[in-house]
Amino acid sequence: MTTPDNASAEPAPVASQDWAAASRNPQYRAAVVDLLGALAYGELAAFERLAEDAKLAPSLADKAELAKMASAEFHHFERLRDRLSSIGAVPGEAMEPFVSALDGFHRQTAPSDWLEGLVKAYVGDSIASDFYREVATRLDSDTRDLVLGVLDDTGHASFAVEKVRAAIEADSRVGGRLALWARRLMGEALSQSQRVVADRDALSTMLVGGLADGFDLAEVGKMFSRITEAHTKRMAALGLAA
Amino acid sequence: MTTPDNASAEPAPVASQDWAAASRNPQYRAAVVDLLGALAYGELAAFERLAEDAKLAPSLADKAELAKMASAEFHHFERLRDRLSSIGAVPGEAMEPFVSALDGFHRQTAPSDWLEGLVKAYVGDSIASDFYREVATRLDSDTRDLVLGVLDDTGHASFAVEKVRAAIEADSRVGGRLALWARRLMGEALSQSQRVVADRDALSTMLVGGLADGFDLAEVGKMFSRITEAHTKRMAALGLAA
Repeated sequence: MTTPDNASAEPAPVASQDWAAASRNPQYRAAVVDLLGALAYGELAAFERLAEDAKLAPSLADKAELAKMASAEFHHFERLRDRLSSIGAVPGEAMEPFVSALDGFHRQTAPSDWLEGLVKAYVGDSIASDFYREVATRLDSDTRDLVLGVLDDTGHASFAVEKVRAAIEADSRVGGRLALWARRLMGEALSQSQRVVADRDALSTMLVGGLADGFDLAEVGKMFSRITEAHTKRMAALGLAA
Repeated sequence: MTTPDNASAEPAPVASQDWAAASRNPQYRAAVVDLLGALAYGELAAFERLAEDAKLAPSLADKAELAKMASAEFHHFERLRDRLSSIGAVPGEAMEPFVSALDGFHRQTAPSDWLEGLVKAYVGDSIASDFYREVATRLDSDTRDLVLGVLDDTGHASFAVEKVRAAIEADSRVGGRLALWARRLMGEALSQSQRVVADRDALSTMLVGGLADGFDLAEVGKMFSRITEAHTKRMAALGLAA
């Protein structure tokens, strides 16, 4: 018979447990509170920025599309916050450690026009979706259901693709400018994520698939690589050499 | 037997008709498209401003409350926009005549701090609710159901009352400042509404309860007075002598 510590050092056992069983491990519990706090503040910050970027819209219909995305992010936030409360965490406290990195990201990447805003909405939505999918496999069944449920409801950014593609077809120089912009978005996202990884041990350890003492930075790097590769492919498909 | 024109000159007949019957009168139809356009853009603009004002929140929980109101306004917008489409109007065109008045209102009343933002959210929510209630009695049954349905879902601003009251109790000078602010909000709302009334004949005529040629400006004035009185009572209850 394995000890609980050994059992939870492997990702498979956690994934086959529900929250009640998995959360008996305090390190796992702390990691999930961190994860939900990071995701919740990510959604709240995304809501604010999309609502802000909606001001750049050239038409009321475009404004409404971005406002719709913002509102969807707010509903994701509500689900994540409610889960934090229901597992006995204080949502504000769980989110706090991630405020500075996420605000920093948005401050560094304020779009200067509508097309930059669209690319940011699309890139942000896609990276979030990749990240949710990566992390879901490492979670207990209840937390996984929540994360996949929120993920199911993303993908609102597809309208952005068509608009960006049309703008590039109309003027190829737009493509060069937006390719640089997309690269800057990804660079800034990686640099803020790495700050978070360095600060939050329990979360980072879980992200690489285990609860062993310490964690393998190379594994975190591999996850970031997979997400970056997917980003690069999407940008190429969009007509932006990333 | 009355002619259709005479029948729809009285408010009661319109209120007892459904949209299919009432919309045979082109003047009534135009008035409803105007009304839904004004309400829809009002909700979209409210979404944007509440999302913007959420930045002033002193805590993440407060920010989430304002974001929740913003998201509710967005869902009202969606219902009004979808109705415009389903009656064969182009939502963007229906909203356009009201963009400048509503943007003007929000530009003139950008809150300078969190408490001003809360008072604005509360005042805006309450005035909107009074106006929806006034106008609902003058509408065909289908449009009335929509307007009352959207109204049913307002009142998210009650959390603001408690916060503002606590701030006034803690420092009575805050009350004087916020009373001035509430008066300015109402003044600006009235001045922008009067611009709209002067510009949009069909809408204004319907608002005063009839579809007669021309309309009685005194009746519009009375509706504004009722809304202003209700505002004054609410402000007094809040500890703000308006």
